[in-house]
Parts: sequence; structure tokens; C-alpha cells
Amino acid sequence: MQLFSLKLVSVVGETVIMEDIAKEGIKLGATGYTMTEVNGHGSRSARNVASTTGARTMKVEFVVPADVAKAILTHVSHEYFEHYAIIAWLSDVEVMRGEQYTKHG
Amino acid sequence: MQLFSLKLVSVVGETVIMEDIAKEGIKLGATGYTMTEVNGHGSRSARNVASTTGARTMKVEFVVPADVAKAILTHVSHEYFEHYAIIAWLSDVEVMRGEQYTKHG
Amino acid sequence: MQLFSLKLVSVVGETVIMEDIAKEGIKLGATGYTMTEVNGHGSRSARNVASTTGARTMKVEFVVPADVAKAILTHVSHEYFEHYAIIAWLSDVEVMRGEQYTKHG
Repeated sequence: MQLFSLKLVSVVGETVIMEDIAKEGIKLGATGYTMTEVNGHGSRSARNVASTTGARTMKVEFVVPADVAKAILTHVSHEYFEHYAIIAWLSDVEVMRGEQYTKHG
Repeated sequence: MQLFSLKLVSVVGETVIMEDIAKEGIKLGATGYTMTEVNGHGSRSARNVASTTGARTMKVEFVVPADVAKAILTHVSHEYFEHYAIIAWLSDVEVMRGEQYTKHG
Repeated sequence: MQLFSLKLVSVVGETVIMEDIAKEGIKLGATGYTMTEVNGHGSRSARNVASTTGARTMKVEFVVPADVAKAILTHVSHEYFEHYAIIAWLSDVEVMRGEQYTKHG
């Protein structure tokens, strides 16, 4: 069994922008994504924005090489962080049949 | 791009208690959470409890500093493990704009 | 607080086969699983299969010891990778009350 070290990128935010982020992730090199409906609650107290939200929220996930992960996070931070309640993180994963995620590799 | 090392805490259990756990996580220092409806199936065979369940189940996730993660896990284990079918785990994540998760840091 | 190092196995694929995979995971040693409805989109361009899908998709997750994780991934790859759009990965997690996941350990 061969495993490939890749990154799982998770982005959680308001449903209205998550479809765009999914498509933008594909443009940046992801070969797929999953979207999950979640109920989110977050305070943005650190930035003094009064946006405690209980609104409809989605999580989008991409399994991608490290450089694509970085590109997606950078894009999301530049385009959305200022105006939307959104969080993004990455974690290490090992994937079977990793070649399908590395069309740019 | 600056990334912050934090913990993703995942707790899966019966829907009836997950709202409380989400709120308790906030009290213990989390600045937000996501809740996802899942179908869970688990045996508690190790404890000889006949509770193989297919009931409504939720997953609650927090992205928090390590000390808050530890506080949430400890709380959940003390308050719920004896009487509820519940599991909890943590993993390492790297988060963009980590400052919003470290109001106690 | 005692934590146990285990593996989180995530498998995403068409809903029609995910119930089987969940049950097969139990047979291979998992003591439970969660299933989440997701919207998946993936290209299988690397294998020249014209199956860009937007169909109903599920994610099944198992928290298991490393040997069980390997058995599940191997089984999934042998039984499903050729004919189904399916992806599978694992990540490191630390679990409270790990003994319930190690009935074979």
C-alpha cells in the first residue's frame, strides 16, 4: 500500500461564498472538493466586529499537495478575510492513490 | 502567509447533549465551533454496555489552542463519558489568522 | 488525562457503496463509524475516466489503531478503486478513552 503525504485544507464560512471558494480551489490546482453543511457559531471578537453568527454555514475541504494548499489559503485570506466571517486551516493527511491529486506535480 | 499551530477538537455524540458541549466549549475558551449532523454507529463493548446505537448524532468541532483543547477534553470526559456514548479526539492543525483563536493567549 | 494515538480514516464516495464500506470497516476491526452527507465534486482526470461527478456522496470516518486503518485502506483500494470514484486518507489523532477502539489490540 502506497501512501502520499498531502494536505487537507478546510474552509468554513457563510454558504453564500463557499461555492465560489470551491471553484476557485479547483482553479488553483485542486482536483476535487467536498462540501458539508454545518451549523457554525463564531465570534470575531479579536477584530472587534459584531458578527456573532448562527447563520447557514458550509465547510469546504480539499485534499491537495502542499503548494496548492498554500495557494488556496493565501487566496482565501486575501479575498475574503476582510469582509466575511471565515476560517481556514490545514492538516497533514496520507492519501491512497495520491497521483490523482497531483496533476500539477 | 502566517500559520498558527492549534488543535482541532472533535466530539461525536448524541444530539441531545451536543448543544451543551458546544456552549461549554465556548465557556472554556473556544471562540467558535461548527456542528455537523452525522449518522453514528458505535459499540461500547469495551465497557460492557449494550448500547449499539444508530441514533441521531452530531459532531462538534473546535479549533483552539492546546490548553483549551485539553480543558474541553477533560470537561467532556468528566461530565459525559460515564453516561453517554460519546467519543472525542484532537488533531494538529495550522490556522490562518490564528489570533482570533487565542483571546486567552 | 490519558490520550491514545490512533488514526482517523476518512473515505469519501458515492452513497450507494458507503454503507457497505462502513460495515466492512467494522468487520476489519473498527468499533464504530460516523457517516456524513457531503456534496462531492471530483475529476478522475489522472485515470482518463470521464466521471466528473456532482452526485450524492457520503464521507465515512473511522477512529482506529494503525493496523486496522491499514486494513481498511487496503480493502477499500482493492475492492472499489477500480470501479468507483472514491478517495481515502488517514490522519493522526489523539483520542480520550482509547481502550474502546482497541478491542483487537
